Amino acid sequence: MMKNKIPAKAYLFPMPVALIGANVNGKPNFETLAYVGIVEADPPMISIASWETHYTNIGIKENGTFSVNTPTEDLAEKIDYVGIVSGKEVDKSEVFDVFYGDLKTAPMASLSPLNLECEVIKTIKVTELVDLEKGHEIFIGKIVNAYSDEKYLTEGIPDITKLTAFTYSRNTYWKVGGKLAPAFEIGKKYIEK
Amino acid sequence: MMKNKIPAKAYLFPMPVALIGANVNGKPNFETLAYVGIVEADPPMISIASWETHYTNIGIKENGTFSVNTPTEDLAEKIDYVGIVSGKEVDKSEVFDVFYGDLKTAPMASLSPLNLECEVIKTIKVTELVDLEKGHEIFIGKIVNAYSDEKYLTEGIPDITKLTAFTYSRNTYWKVGGKLAPAFEIGKKYIEK
Repeated sequence: MMKNKIPAKAYLFPMPVALIGANVNGKPNFETLAYVGIVEADPPMISIASWETHYTNIGIKENGTFSVNTPTEDLAEKIDYVGIVSGKEVDKSEVFDVFYGDLKTAPMASLSPLNLECEVIKTIKVTELVDLEKGHEIFIGKIVNAYSDEKYLTEGIPDITKLTAFTYSRNTYWKVGGKLAPAFEIGKKYIEK
Repeated sequence: MMKNKIPAKAYLFPMPVALIGANVNGKPNFETLAYVGIVEADPPMISIASWETHYTNIGIKENGTFSVNTPTEDLAEKIDYVGIVSGKEVDKSEVFDVFYGDLKTAPMASLSPLNLECEVIKTIKVTELVDLEKGHEIFIGKIVNAYSDEKYLTEGIPDITKLTAFTYSRNTYWKVGGKLAPAFEIGKKYIEK
């Protein structure tokens, strides 16, 4: 079966939504990104891509730290807001109640159900990879600490049914979390006996 | 507000599920990954992280190409299956009906609603970044073509409500897609007039 080409764009389903925190000029700043992905399990490492002129990037590069805060439906309006306005024009330091962890410079949103405190291990500018005048900066971070609250956990692990995280597509946020099927299980029917 | 530390792990909500295709020793092979993220919009670029000893990695490195196929509920069992068994032990070339695009060497699953044909631009071994004996290889790919079918599109763009993609967490696949709220809109209430 051959298929139809459609314009090649940055499609991913589902796409995460992450609230990224960084201290810029000594104050907490947040932006919302969908260009986020895990890259290693142990030590846990995460990659985020943020447009090079973003205000948040200044702080990430200055301190070598950032935070990844899981969104929740309760925080959706504020998360949308910090994705609309730039820290260059608006002081976003008061949007979220903030706490700091061991790294001291990665602000985290207290009301987010899961905060990952990250130390930058590697920075890659997309302009160094492809012929492009401006692009994203990819920050690969080691997750040095994770913070949560008992009410979001099941057996000590963040529970997708308690977090109310959401995904982004086509200018809309979408819910996640209805159970579909057990992983590493439903495929076993194809394993030859 | 201070929060509780929990063991730092590779948490992301929602986490994508992607069916990765590569030709290995001249035959199509597929594996399922959750460590996937977009890193650039124009040109569209995607990053995938696959454990260095995986069979799929051999083909990605040999050909410099791979595919990212969006999962669907219909294909969940097969997608789970190729994530359980290794191409080193089992021939997975017949699991999916396959087609090839312009790159010729990146097999794509015909029944997946959205296929991204990718060319490797940069490879990063996590063992080069942190002190680790074995780790993931991060392949950053340029999405050179996207393939879909009219029934999955709305105004020419893949529609999350038509794809039935799903997310992974805690050994379980979860549904995505109930509408939550408009993005770049609900946060406007915080913009000072």
